[in-house]
Amino acid sequence: MGALTTKGAATRQRIVEGAAETIRERGVMDTTLDDVRARTRTSKSQLFHYFPGGKEELLLAVARFEADRVLADQQPYLGELTSWAAWWAWRDRVVERYREQGRQCPLNVVMSQVGHSTPGAQAVVNELTLRWEAEIATGVRHMQAAGEIDPGIDPGRAAAALLAGIQGGVLLHLSTGRLTHLEAALDMGIGHLRDSAARLSRPYGAGA
Amino acid sequence: MGALTTKGAATRQRIVEGAAETIRERGVMDTTLDDVRARTRTSKSQLFHYFPGGKEELLLAVARFEADRVLADQQPYLGELTSWAAWWAWRDRVVERYREQGRQCPLNVVMSQVGHSTPGAQAVVNELTLRWEAEIATGVRHMQAAGEIDPGIDPGRAAAALLAGIQGGVLLHLSTGRLTHLEAALDMGIGHLRDSAARLSRPYGAGA
Repeated sequence: MGALTTKGAATRQRIVEGAAETIRERGVMDTTLDDVRARTRTSKSQLFHYFPGGKEELLLAVARFEADRVLADQQPYLGELTSWAAWWAWRDRVVERYREQGRQCPLNVVMSQVGHSTPGAQAVVNELTLRWEAEIATGVRHMQAAGEIDPGIDPGRAAAALLAGIQGGVLLHLSTGRLTHLEAALDMGIGHLRDSAARLSRPYGAGA
Repeated sequence: MGALTTKGAATRQRIVEGAAETIRERGVMDTTLDDVRARTRTSKSQLFHYFPGGKEELLLAVARFEADRVLADQQPYLGELTSWAAWWAWRDRVVERYREQGRQCPLNVVMSQVGHSTPGAQAVVNELTLRWEAEIATGVRHMQAAGEIDPGIDPGRAAAALLAGIQGGVLLHLSTGRLTHLEAALDMGIGHLRDSAARLSRPYGAGA
């Protein structure tokens, strides 16, 4: 698909949002293209114009939209990890987001339908992972510049470890209904970064 | 199903193992009960005797078998976390296990088919989570008794955080093909526990 006009982009976005809401309400199995057309007041030819690949292409666009939402829901905290207060506020926001969401994860629901191992689905996960990690790593660098985190810590690796803990915590929340793992992983990850500065203040360096 | 005789239990186990191998080889969608019968040389009435619930019951038994394997593959390391060398050996074994397994996770494959949100599937995940965490927590207590981990750390919570990191690392391995997250999560989690002892040796207590 070529570049869209401003109006075209708005229409496409309206279709994606309408599809996402419909899927959130009644599940992906019970959502048809006709449901989406009805909700977004679009014709078959409009839908085909924006999504020539049909339902699969629309579902991928919804997956991308839900992935964007995962990050947007963490703002402004995730984008401003410049003090320990900010890190703990972000931690609370993440836990709260998943508490509100409950045990249905819209992104996971759509991805299951697209097929987790398809190239399109993997591209969505990879992009979300990269962006999420980049924001956390930026926060680590901020704190290193402020002398609050050991400069010997690799920001990318610290971000990868934190993200793994979050993903595992969310996964275990979906299957157990408890947020314990998510909370423990965030507390340990942030605690580890914070303690690294305490180690710095020791006269003989970074510890064992 | 009532208690099985020794011979009955062995036959049932043979069916479960045969089904697990067949599913590992050709995927869960393409495995029929006839395939399992042929491989394990069992009759229809035998299969029905051990699995009156049919394919769904057999799949759950396979899921339990694969969950047991996840833990067995980490032994003897997971059961003997009594020195830092043992913790790092366990860390390497976990990473190696998932490297060998590649991007197909047999447990996940079976669970997807059973339905992650069914009570049977959730029971398997919950039991695996509890047993895995209990083993890690036992290791934390060992190290606390030896003065190698800050006694102020809650063993159950430390185990929950580590397990979240492992689960997220495995999930990200499945979608990105890279083991970076799993390695980073284990290194951070174990590093955090190890550094807690270094904090103890500071004259003014456990740090910031």
